[in-house]
Parts: sequence; structure tokens; C-alpha cells
Amino acid sequence: MKIDLNSDLGESFGRYTLGCDEKVVPLVTSVNAACGFHAGDPVVMKKTVLLARQAGISVGAHPGFADLQGFGRRNMNLSYEELQACVLYQLGALDAFVKAEGLKLAHVKPHGAMYNMAAKDSKMAEAICSAVQAYDPDLIILAQESGQLYQTAKKMGLRAAAEVFADRAYEEDGTLVARSKPGSMITDPEEALARVLRMIREGKVTAISGKDINVRADSVCVHGDGESALEFIRRIREQCEKENIILAPLREIV
Amino acid sequence: MKIDLNSDLGESFGRYTLGCDEKVVPLVTSVNAACGFHAGDPVVMKKTVLLARQAGISVGAHPGFADLQGFGRRNMNLSYEELQACVLYQLGALDAFVKAEGLKLAHVKPHGAMYNMAAKDSKMAEAICSAVQAYDPDLIILAQESGQLYQTAKKMGLRAAAEVFADRAYEEDGTLVARSKPGSMITDPEEALARVLRMIREGKVTAISGKDINVRADSVCVHGDGESALEFIRRIREQCEKENIILAPLREIV
Amino acid sequence: MKIDLNSDLGESFGRYTLGCDEKVVPLVTSVNAACGFHAGDPVVMKKTVLLARQAGISVGAHPGFADLQGFGRRNMNLSYEELQACVLYQLGALDAFVKAEGLKLAHVKPHGAMYNMAAKDSKMAEAICSAVQAYDPDLIILAQESGQLYQTAKKMGLRAAAEVFADRAYEEDGTLVARSKPGSMITDPEEALARVLRMIREGKVTAISGKDINVRADSVCVHGDGESALEFIRRIREQCEKENIILAPLREIV
Amino acid sequence: MKIDLNSDLGESFGRYTLGCDEKVVPLVTSVNAACGFHAGDPVVMKKTVLLARQAGISVGAHPGFADLQGFGRRNMNLSYEELQACVLYQLGALDAFVKAEGLKLAHVKPHGAMYNMAAKDSKMAEAICSAVQAYDPDLIILAQESGQLYQTAKKMGLRAAAEVFADRAYEEDGTLVARSKPGSMITDPEEALARVLRMIREGKVTAISGKDINVRADSVCVHGDGESALEFIRRIREQCEKENIILAPLREIV
Repeated sequence: MKIDLNSDLGESFGRYTLGCDEKVVPLVTSVNAACGFHAGDPVVMKKTVLLARQAGISVGAHPGFADLQGFGRRNMNLSYEELQACVLYQLGALDAFVKAEGLKLAHVKPHGAMYNMAAKDSKMAEAICSAVQAYDPDLIILAQESGQLYQTAKKMGLRAAAEVFADRAYEEDGTLVARSKPGSMITDPEEALARVLRMIREGKVTAISGKDINVRADSVCVHGDGESALEFIRRIREQCEKENIILAPLREIV
Repeated sequence: MKIDLNSDLGESFGRYTLGCDEKVVPLVTSVNAACGFHAGDPVVMKKTVLLARQAGISVGAHPGFADLQGFGRRNMNLSYEELQACVLYQLGALDAFVKAEGLKLAHVKPHGAMYNMAAKDSKMAEAICSAVQAYDPDLIILAQESGQLYQTAKKMGLRAAAEVFADRAYEEDGTLVARSKPGSMITDPEEALARVLRMIREGKVTAISGKDINVRADSVCVHGDGESALEFIRRIREQCEKENIILAPLREIV
Repeated sequence: MKIDLNSDLGESFGRYTLGCDEKVVPLVTSVNAACGFHAGDPVVMKKTVLLARQAGISVGAHPGFADLQGFGRRNMNLSYEELQACVLYQLGALDAFVKAEGLKLAHVKPHGAMYNMAAKDSKMAEAICSAVQAYDPDLIILAQESGQLYQTAKKMGLRAAAEVFADRAYEEDGTLVARSKPGSMITDPEEALARVLRMIREGKVTAISGKDINVRADSVCVHGDGESALEFIRRIREQCEKENIILAPLREIV
Repeated sequence: MKIDLNSDLGESFGRYTLGCDEKVVPLVTSVNAACGFHAGDPVVMKKTVLLARQAGISVGAHPGFADLQGFGRRNMNLSYEELQACVLYQLGALDAFVKAEGLKLAHVKPHGAMYNMAAKDSKMAEAICSAVQAYDPDLIILAQESGQLYQTAKKMGLRAAAEVFADRAYEEDGTLVARSKPGSMITDPEEALARVLRMIREGKVTAISGKDINVRADSVCVHGDGESALEFIRRIREQCEKENIILAPLREIV
């Protein structure tokens, strides 16, 4: 039994620092590196890829909308052609640093609003997948199994990996409960840990309605913003070790 | 005897159109495609590379400063690390579209202020060349032979091609006469044509001082903004054909 | 009987030129000047305001989303606070040039996606109106009478002027027929002219369904991109003169 | 005897937070608020002006180059017209928030590279001053007395206030010792405090050469990034109180 731990990193920009990437990188198996549109700049991207290489972990692209002020979290309506080209651009830009470090780009996980919109909109999912396919058909799409992005990748013959969230409640259809609703966040670390481990072992989680649902877990999305977040990653690692769940990059899983 | 004709294209952006790329592409052998920093956006880049593929001509990256408002023509002081990362980023971004079209990126020619500053500043030249080397040591640097960028590329073991300008006067040291000085522009098309052909055939041009100087010509930089510019390219092509000078992409020349 | 003619101008940016502002300005009574977010830059804004002063016409702000690549035409989800601050910022920025020319800012008309979204979303309309109110409660909001922006301005006690479109078909509720639908554009200039004059004189227009609807016309939105557009403005002016309809800025109308 | 304490604030952007503005504002008499080009966004600007109003302190504009990635610290070559328009734009943008809070914009202090370049280049100083004059001739220019910006403001009949730096060494001509040189920073807080108080009381400071020079001190530039910086401001305030030096905004000083 294998699981990947992925984290969104490289989100600093110029004079602005975000997250504690140096501390997170040694604890995860996959980095989703921002590509300069919603966060990250060329110097930050270089450093992020270097950190990943030094830790021997896998690097994926984390493309987002060209909206630094909104951190890529504001919905934007791009045409199919614009979205496809915008993803292709970011894949290449990040891959330049990956190639320069002698690594191989492993996966693609859209960021923020692009991720959320593509989960619901199969046309957007297709635009993203077609960019990935045109760039490198070996790349793995990382997304929730229940969403259009994962499903479209599968349909198009791309490799796809399913991610789960430790700190979020689920609807019965496998989507996340909107942050605006009560109970959307799992705030108790012990409960979050228990849920994650069950998702990994059994492929099941209790939805907010109380019903158990199936959920595919190839990777767990973890955060690295602050000490308690780091501590939570350490707890997952510890527990996985105890239960003989092997931490491994996506390439060894899907 | 072979010569390349290169032109800066793909400089439209969003709602804004610049140049008449469709008309220029069939007349040149190499495209320098803007990479989204000083001009160009992902959709424009996609179209530019497609045009080049359809015409069967060679594509190079035309990276510039991140200054859309100044069109990359305003000097900016970047650190070595910033410049290197900024070039690497743009190489990868453009190459994504090149790869997606099944082509291979051929050369790199910095734009505007980056080109001019790197011609005089060997540290900047080194930052640019190191980005090129890290990305793909097969790439050809396109620059004036008299400048630091060409010289540094050669020193670092990179392939370099020398470009000449039909419409500009030269100083005795092979640099261009500043646009602010009288006589800096060769405005008579016949004179420009004669100068270009002599540079190609003899490797010589008459400097503004009246003295003949040596100038290496692997490629002629031509413009495509307007009918008279297009007509000038046609004249060069005609004359080259008459004189058995073969038009060829940089890869076949250096 | 009075009518204002308004046009979106100042949409050039850096090296990129859009429209033929010099030719349009003498033909209209109100300029909607882009404020640097979706189009326009500080130098362009300065020139646009200067043109308006020289022609003795009225200047309004034309704020848009911070999306130069999409020309402010792509829907973006801003929070109430973000939208309010984004409009306030642009009002001040444009007004700096207006003040420097000794003029007084007259009106505000949001651009593109911001205009369209605010017509349907009363919260967005309120955010925009509250920015206008905070900046200068004397400013006139220019929008379609049928939309939320006009209605909200009225409710909040702001001055509002209603604009009509010569080249667009109307739904029965007074909104514009979506461009994607057949018949959305009035392509025959004679028909467009007749419709405009009827809207001015009678406050009526025939909706796409064939039914006559009421439509308030304080101002006609005219385009200036190309000779036929300019010719159309001249025709409106001519016809207005014949029918003793006086061309006047918004301030003299509402 | 009166002195102003000024601090560069409002430098957060979108998701990125910089400085601890809430803690600094109550300790100073003048805020230099970033205007969205090198730092700050409309929401941040609104908050910064609100903080200043609540603390009852004075607000000035802190315009910078349009270079968020470089935080306005990289030299950029703008034309006279571009610089003038770029400053005018930022003055208006910030003033929108100032007006909305019922305040009056008090002063202008360029940021980073614009400040440093204008200190040495009288043409740039003139472009900045002409923007200020066109916008509001009552505005105070805040700069070092030894530099071209202060001198040009005086020549043009504008009000100017002279600022001094507690933590920087001075050359004999009153300019700051370049950060790259040894001894450029005054790292001992006691020494920094003693130097500041002497500059306020006597208008003198010991240059790095050992020679005493004259230096006009209407305002002290203080930093707010971290607890030791805040502690240093508190020490200045304490000492000023002891010595009957009154803290006052620039308007009461020049």
C-alpha cells in the first residue's frame, strides 16, 4: 500500500515570502510548484525546484489564473483556447527549471479557482488536459476522483492520480463541502488523521450527511503554512510507517 | 554562401495587434517569437509557432524584460540571478508551444533593452548564456558579433550566430550608431540593400566614419511592420537568389 | 430635447494603439476614458484627457477589471470590498489627469465584463456605486436603465444617466440580446440610425420579439474603430441637427 | 523644536503581507502609503489610509516604479513623460482613498529606485515635481536635502521637507553610503539614536570620513519591520519627549 503526500509550494513572489517551503519539502513526496501566474516568480521557481531536487522528491506544475492580486482564487472566464495556452505556457515555464536541474516534470495540478472550476466544467477540464497531452502525455493529472478534471484525464487516456483532503468535509458525491457551510473544515487533528488513514486503507470516508462514501486516495494534499500544519504532516508520516503504508511519489502509484 | 533572415514576431497581446506576422513569416527563415514578458501572450505565442511550422521556418525565443508598458525597451537593472531565471522561464514557456507543434527550438535572441544591455555588459551576457546553456546547450545565441553576448556565448562554448542590420549605421567598433545621432538610420532602400549584400558577400561595411570595417553576417534582421518593410525583404530575397546566396535557417549556417 | 454621445476611448497601451481617438473626440460629447486596468496606461490617460479638453467635451472614468490580456472582457469574481476599492482606485487615477488639465470628472461607466456583471448583480452594482459615492457624490453613473447598476445608483441617491446602443438588439426586458444569438447585432446602418432616433425621440425600441418596449435614452454609446463607425456618428449628428435634438454632455441632461 | 517620523507602509499585496502596519502607525506622524505599482493594492491602500485616519496621523503618497517583482527597487529608465504620468496616476489613485476617508493628502515621497534615481538626476526630479505641482501645489515633497529631488522642489516653488536616516552612514556630500560599502549601516541602536537626535537638534552628523557635515532634519525615516525596529521608534519618541522635541506632521514643520 502506497500513498503520495503533495503540497502547494513556491508561492512566494519577489519581496514577498509565503509558507516555509524548506521545512515542508523534506516531509512530502510531491511538490506542486507555482508557475508565476497566481504566485511564484522565476527566481522562486528556481529555488523551489532546487529544494525538491535536494530532497529527492517529485516536482509537478501548479498552474493558475493570471491573477496575482487574487492569488488565483478568483473565478475567471477564459475561453477554451486561452485556458489551454495559459496552461501550456506555465508547464513549459516551470519545466525549464526542472530540466535545468536534471529532473523530469512528474505531474500537473491546477491551482485554486482553476482547480475548482475544472472540477465542475468538463470543457475546462478538457482544455487543461489537452495542454498536458500536447506538452507531455506522460504527465500525471492530480485532482479529486469525483471531479471532471480527473474523469476527463482518464477519458483522454492520460494518467491521473486522485487526491484527498485531510481537513475538509465531503458531500455524498465526493465533492468538498463549500467553505461557507458549517462543518466544512475538519478542525480536530486526530479526527483528520483518522479520516485520512481510512481513506488510504479502505478508500472510504464519512460524508457530512453521515453516509460512508467511496473515495480514491493516491495522494494526500497537505499544507505547510505554520508549525501545526507541519506537525500534522509528521503525524501522517508516523502513522503510515506504523501501518506499513509506504510514502511514494505519484509515478510509483498510478 | 548562406544567409538567414530573422524577424521579431508574435508581438501582439490580447486585444492588441502588432505587425503583420502572416505576411512576414513566408519571407524569412527564422522567427524570433516574443515570450510574454515584453510582448506576446500564450495565445499569440501558440499562433506564432503555428505560423512558423506552416511556413516550415525555424523558431527562436525572443525573451525580454517584464515590462509590457515599455515594450521591453526600457533599461531595467536585474540581478544576475533574476536575469538568468527570467530568461530560463521564457525559454521554457515558448518551448512548450514549439514542442506542442512537434518542432525544436532553434535559437535565442534577447529583445530590446535586454539585447542592448547584454551587448555591453559581459555579466548580463553571461547570465543569459548560462540560462541558455542550462536549458539546452544546442541552442544558438543570435546577436551582433561585436557585442558581449556573442563573444560570451563563444567563450562559454555555445553556438552563436552573428546578425547584421540593413537599416542602421555602424560605428568603427562594429556597434550600431545610437538612434539619437544624425545618420544613424540608412533610409535609402537601395543603399540599405547594397550594404546588406556587401556584408553577406564580403563581411564588410562602411562605418559612419567612412572607414571599412569587418562585420560577420550569419543573419540579417528584417522588419515586417508595413508594406515597405515587406517590399525590402522581397528585394533582399530576389537579390540573394540572383547572386546564388542561399537563404537558410541558422542551424545550417553555424 | 437633448442627447449625449459617449464613446470608450483611451484604450491604447504602451506600444499598442487602439482606435482613432483623435477622430472620434470631436464627434462625441462624452469620453469614457480607460483607467489602466483593462486598457490605457498613464501616458495614454494623459493624452486622452488632453484631447477631451481641447475638444471641450466631458470626461468620465471607464474602470474595468485588472485583466489587460482579456481587455477586461472576461468575468472575474471580485469580493465586494475588492470591487469597491478597485473602482475607487481607478476613479482617483483618472481624475489626477482630469484635475491636472483643470477639468472636472463628470461620470463613471464601468467597462466590459464589469459593466455586464453589474447590470445583473445588485451587490456588484452597490459596490461600484458606493465607490462613486465615496469619491464624489456628484458623479453620474452611466448605464442601461434596465440594469441593476442604473437602478442601484438611483436607489442610493446618485445621479444616473441611461445609455442606449444603436447596433444591438434588445430583449423585451430592455437587456441586450447576447452576442451569441442570431440577430443580436443591427448591421444595417439605416436601421440602426432609425432605431436610435426613435429611442431618443419616443423612448421606444422594437425588441427582438417584435414587441415595442420602453427604453430611456440620455446617451448613445458610439464606437470609433474605423471609418464606417465614424461615418455612423456623423449620420447621427446630422440627423439630430435636422430634428432639433441638441447634443449635450450628461451634466446638462440628468 | 519639531520633528516628523515617517514610515513606508501599505506594502502588502493580495495574499502577501509585509510589515506590521497596525503597530507602526500609532508610533509615527506620517505614513508613506504604497500606491499599487511597486507594492500595495487597492484593498491594502484602503486599509492603510483607514489606519492612518484612526491614528490621526498624516498620509502621503509613496509612488514607485511599476515593478512588483522587484519591489520598485530595480532601476528603470522611464522617459520624462512616462515618469510624470506614472507619478500623477499614483497620486490620484492613493488620493481617492484619502478623500473617501475625509482626509487631505499631505506629502509625496518616491519609493526605492525612483527615490534614489531622482536624488541624482535633476530631470527625473523635475518630472516628479511637475506631476506633484500639476496635481496639488500644496503637497510637500519628502526627500533628502542633499539630493536633486529636494533641491528641484525648492527651485520650482514647491514645499519640501528633508528626511534623515537613523541607520545609515553618510558621505561628506550628504548622500547615503552605498549599502555595498563596509560601514554603510549603523547597526548599534544607541549610536543610531544618538546620531538621530544630534541631526534633529544640531543639524549635524558625522560622515563616514569622520568629518562633521550639515544635514537638515524635518523628518526621520523609520522602519516597522519587526520588534526591534518598533522598539527603536519607541526609543526615539521617548528621547524626543525628554528633550522637548515635539513630534508633528510635516505640515506643521515646513
